[in-house]
Parts: sequence; structure tokens; C-alpha cells
Amino acid sequence: MIRLAPIAANLPATVPFVGPETLERQAGRPFAARLGANENGFGPSPRAVAAMQAAAGEVWKYGDPTSHDLTHVLAAHHGVRPENIVVGEGIDGLLGLLVRLLIAPGDAVVTSDGAYPTFNFHVTGFGGVLHKVAYRDDAEDPQALLDRARQVGARLVYLANPDNPMGSWHDGHAIEEMLDGLAEGALLVLDEAYAEFAPAGTIPSIAPDDPRVIRMRTFSKAYGMAGARIGYAIGHPGLIAAFDRVRNHFGVNRIGQAGVLAALTDGDWLARTVARVAAARDRIGAIAADNGMAALPSATNFVALDTGRDGAFARRLVDALAADGVFIRMPGVAPLNRCIRISCAPDAELDLLAAALPSALRSIGDRDEPAADARL
Amino acid sequence: MIRLAPIAANLPATVPFVGPETLERQAGRPFAARLGANENGFGPSPRAVAAMQAAAGEVWKYGDPTSHDLTHVLAAHHGVRPENIVVGEGIDGLLGLLVRLLIAPGDAVVTSDGAYPTFNFHVTGFGGVLHKVAYRDDAEDPQALLDRARQVGARLVYLANPDNPMGSWHDGHAIEEMLDGLAEGALLVLDEAYAEFAPAGTIPSIAPDDPRVIRMRTFSKAYGMAGARIGYAIGHPGLIAAFDRVRNHFGVNRIGQAGVLAALTDGDWLARTVARVAAARDRIGAIAADNGMAALPSATNFVALDTGRDGAFARRLVDALAADGVFIRMPGVAPLNRCIRISCAPDAELDLLAAALPSALRSIGDRDEPAADARL
Repeated sequence: MIRLAPIAANLPATVPFVGPETLERQAGRPFAARLGANENGFGPSPRAVAAMQAAAGEVWKYGDPTSHDLTHVLAAHHGVRPENIVVGEGIDGLLGLLVRLLIAPGDAVVTSDGAYPTFNFHVTGFGGVLHKVAYRDDAEDPQALLDRARQVGARLVYLANPDNPMGSWHDGHAIEEMLDGLAEGALLVLDEAYAEFAPAGTIPSIAPDDPRVIRMRTFSKAYGMAGARIGYAIGHPGLIAAFDRVRNHFGVNRIGQAGVLAALTDGDWLARTVARVAAARDRIGAIAADNGMAALPSATNFVALDTGRDGAFARRLVDALAADGVFIRMPGVAPLNRCIRISCAPDAELDLLAAALPSALRSIGDRDEPAADARL
Repeated sequence: MIRLAPIAANLPATVPFVGPETLERQAGRPFAARLGANENGFGPSPRAVAAMQAAAGEVWKYGDPTSHDLTHVLAAHHGVRPENIVVGEGIDGLLGLLVRLLIAPGDAVVTSDGAYPTFNFHVTGFGGVLHKVAYRDDAEDPQALLDRARQVGARLVYLANPDNPMGSWHDGHAIEEMLDGLAEGALLVLDEAYAEFAPAGTIPSIAPDDPRVIRMRTFSKAYGMAGARIGYAIGHPGLIAAFDRVRNHFGVNRIGQAGVLAALTDGDWLARTVARVAAARDRIGAIAADNGMAALPSATNFVALDTGRDGAFARRLVDALAADGVFIRMPGVAPLNRCIRISCAPDAELDLLAAALPSALRSIGDRDEPAADARL
């Protein structure tokens, strides 16, 4: 039969990526509130929608494989050169390419236990060896990451600022200090997917050509365009150019390219989204308080709510809400998994959350039974 | 500085993927006729356009990572089970994943000298070793591929039917016989990107669960949706499932998913496109004859024209047409590169080709000067 190459043969046959559509099919009905995937229900700029609609008839053409116009606009947007930017199929796709470029089988990579699973998927997928440090006070711990990286001779160190799944963040100066403490030969993967939501001072001041770090950005979050699959990386021109050696050159879809170019012209919409998200964070905090849970501070478009219990309890709560039509997710490992994670969304969806949460909590009560029983 | 992993470090820093947009920027003006990328200027079904326009406002949601609905519709379309199908970011993306799954560094892969460069890019990109056999009478040579595969112990054998860049094709029975001759341990990658254009009998009869072959299909060609970046593979459920180990699970864009689902409901549009393409092939053949060139028979949406000269002449002709606003391409290696390759397109663009070709030929004449001189 079919014999896979050694790395692929040793990978798990099952994967942790379960989308809301799969859960909906299992439940036999769509979710009424989609609050689990850190999508942005405030949606894309109307200019982006119009540009994508106009581009639909031109979809017979491949997209520009260099994403020339987008790269140049992004360079101006960030005050860097086009040579500092590579556009790809979302941060997920770019993380995979980055790992492929830098990690040989057996190479060490450091991340936090509970941080972005897709990064880990790629590291394992290319034969890298993951080393994980614990969160500290529900935030990623730069010093622990640095120490472990030095200890294991890591080639890559992953940190998201602001963080997913906890929503916590570090001051930009802390990231700059982290860079200064990075061992020779290690590259910091700074995932800034949620950067636009963060308070002033969160984004570090990093020279565009700094070879110690690559930054990941996306249109999936603040720009409300997760389905367009456009992300980009900012880094040293030598590293950025290396992506051309392995990337799927015609892989970025043309309609998405047109959409994000238009989105970048609509700063007002972005500012309005950021304000709406901030208001939604406050409302999620109030809903949490009404239900005896504490909202963790968040610099993102989601809020982690501390159930005050353990992962089994949080899992039952996630399942109970799903049974009531409300899709949320939760961190994957202890102690983060005492929390549930709720994406910011328009009031209509948060109304459903507010309505569903008390009965969901009642239904799972103080008992230790599995969720299947609790739903009876 | 930045140290790449060994495989990446040994890859070429430059890549052969030059899109028409890059050429347009170099020339300082857009092409008047875009006939080089085997795109389909007859465009997508109006249903697909409408579906994409409707989906644009929903782009804040990620696409379904399982492409569930599309997979099921495609399964019904091909009379296979959903377990036989994986959807990905175009055939290009799927070829990369396939190579990653099966090829360890040093593994042998067989293809034809002059066949699809992107497949070669992926093989080299994962450390595989390419072995190439010659075309025979401007067609890929199944027996030569089989012989070489056996000789080098190939894990993968690539064949496109119909072929790109020559447009030639084999009867389906020849492919079935090829499968029967395939050595144990080798997998046939059957690229059927142009299948919808081919005459009856070209598509082999292959059991869906046959473990000796994986077939590649796309919406980029007959469906006129290259910019949507949606392709799929049909194969043994064990091999298809393995893609989940390595693919970018949320990588297929949502608007494209909606578009191709709608395109699949419009068989009339597809039939009309195939008829238009056939008429355009005839017209390209007539234009060729008017200019003293022979059109090779084609089962695709492009036509290879035999200049009767060599690769240097064909290159000058491609450059001369580009200087006159007509974008075409040519095969990359001898003896195929005595030809130029022209995509089928609506009459307005073929009018431009017909108008430009005589003067382009005159401008390069019988001389051996490089194209830069010929354009003076």
C-alpha cells in the first residue's frame, strides 16, 4: 500500500482542527452565535466588500504571484521597504513556510504550553522538536522562553503579542528586551495577529532589517476578513526573500488581494471596528460578572473568562453552550483551560450568549458528570 | 545571520514564476491580450460570480476547514465517495503537499523534460531527486516514464493528461495500461487539470480506491476560476486522509468555496465554455497557418504553435509579441521550445494576436540577434 515519507508517517492521523461547520453538522443545526474562532463579526470594510464583488468577474485570472501592489502598500503602511514583506495564505500558511525554511528534523523550537496550536502543528509536521514553557500569570513568559531557548539551542522561539488564547499582552519594550536576550542563531517568531486591537505601546519598535525576528500580521482579525486568507510577514530582506524558494507562488487568491487592498484604504472602518471590539470586550466582561466569572484583561478581539474551576468544567460549559446554539472555544491545557474564550461580536450575538450562559451553568452545576449527561 | 535548514539552503534563490503583472510593470503598460498563462478568458459561470459576490460580506468567517459541502458535491459529480477527495489551494498547493507526504530527501521522482515546472519546484523543494525522460512526438511517453521509474526506484511518476505545455493527450486506455505497468511502491500523479477540454475517451476508467494513482483536478481552467485557488485530488482514502496530517487546514478561502460550488451547478456554462475553447483553438490554428506556423493538435485550452525554428527564435517571438501588448509563453526545454504556447480566449484578444503576429515575425526575421535588438 501507500508508504509515506518518514516524517509524515510519524505524524498523528487525527488533527485538532475542528471548525464550527463540523460541530453544526454534528448537532444538526447551525449555531445562532459564532463566538469561538476569534473571527470578527463586525465584518470587513464595505470598500473591501465592493472591491471583492468587482473582482469576482475577473477571477479567471490568477492573482499576481508577487502580490506587488499589496506588498508596496503594506510597506508604506508600516514604514518599511517592500523587500521586508512577504504576503501569504494567512499567518497559518506563512508559519508553515517559515518552519520549513528553518527547521530540519530534530531541530529545537520553543513555545508556550497552550499557545497557538497551528504553529506546533507545523513544527511537528516538519520534524522539529517542540519545547514548551509555562505561562506566567496567564501571559506568555519572555524570560522563560529565552532561558529554554538557550538551554535547548532553539532555532525558533514563538511568542504572540497580544496572546491567543488568553488575550494578555506585553509592553513593546518587553519584546525589545526579549530580542536583546535572544541567543545567537535563534529567530523570534512574533505573532502579531491581534496587534490592531492592542493598547498604544504594545507594538515594539523594531528595525525593519533586524535579523533576529519575523513578525506575522493578518487581515483575518481586525480587518474582519478571515475567509480571504491573506496574511503577511515582516522581516529581514534575506529571510523574506527565502520564502520565494518554497512558497506556492500563485497561491494567494485574486479576490482576497483586491479586498485587502481596499480594506487598507479604510482606516475609519478599522478604527470603528477597534472601538466596537473594545465595547464588546466590556460587555462580555459584564456578562461574565453577572454569571460569577472573572474576565481576564484582553488586548484582542476575544476575552478569556475564568470559570474558577478546572478544564473538565470548562469543557462541559463549552459543550452546554454549543447545545444551546452558542459556539465558543477554550484553551487546550491546564491551567489555562480553567477558562473559556469568547470572541467579540455584535450585540445580537452577545445577547444570545447572555441568555444562554446562566442556564448552561445551571445545567452543568457543581457535578463532575461528563457533558453528555449534563445535557440530558 | 539567518541560517536556513539544509534543504532550503540548497534551493535556488531565484524562481521561474514570472506572472504577467511583473512583465506589465517592466513594460510600463498592461497587456492588451493575456494569452500566456492558460487562463480561461471566457470566464466563470455567472452563477459562480453571483455566489462569490454574495459571499463577500461573509468573508469575516473562515472557510469550512473540511470543505465538507464541496467535497460531497465533487464526490457525487465523479461517482466516488467523499473519502476519495481532498480540496486544496489549487493543484499547485496539492502537488506540494503530495510531495511532502511521500518524498524524503534523496527519493527519486520521474517526470518528462519540459513538463509542469511547479511539480519539479516542489520535488526539489522537499529534497527529492528528479529524473526526466524525453517527450516522444510532442507527447509525454508513458513507457519511457515507467521504464525510468523502475530503473531509479521512483516513488512518484508525474504525467499530465492532457499535457501542458504541448496540448497533446493519450487515450484513457493508455493511462490504464500505464498503471498496470507501474512498479510496486510507485505512485502515478495524474494531472488532469485540462480534463474537461479533452475528447471523449481521454479520461481513464480508474477505480476510486486504486492505490496506484492520485488524480489532480482544478477550477482554474475549464471553470474559468484560476484566481479562486481551488483544486482537488481524487485518490485512495488512505492517501487522501494523509493530507490532513500536513495541509493548512483553514487555507482554502471561503469566497472561492462558494464560487466553485455554484459553478458546479452550471453544466450549461461549462459546455458552452468547452465549445468556445474548441472554436478558439481552430481560430488559433488558422492564425498560425496564415503566418506559416503549424498548430499542434490540442486537447486543452491552449495551442502550441510550431515555429519550425529553435528556442532562441521562439523566445524572440514571445518577446516581440509582448512588446506589442500580447502576452504568450513558450515551453522551457528543447525540442519543445521550438513552439510558442497560446491560450484560447475570446475573439477580441485573438484579433490582437492575429494583428500582432505578422509584424512580430517580420521584426525578428531570420536574424539571430537577441530580442532586445529585434525590438528596436
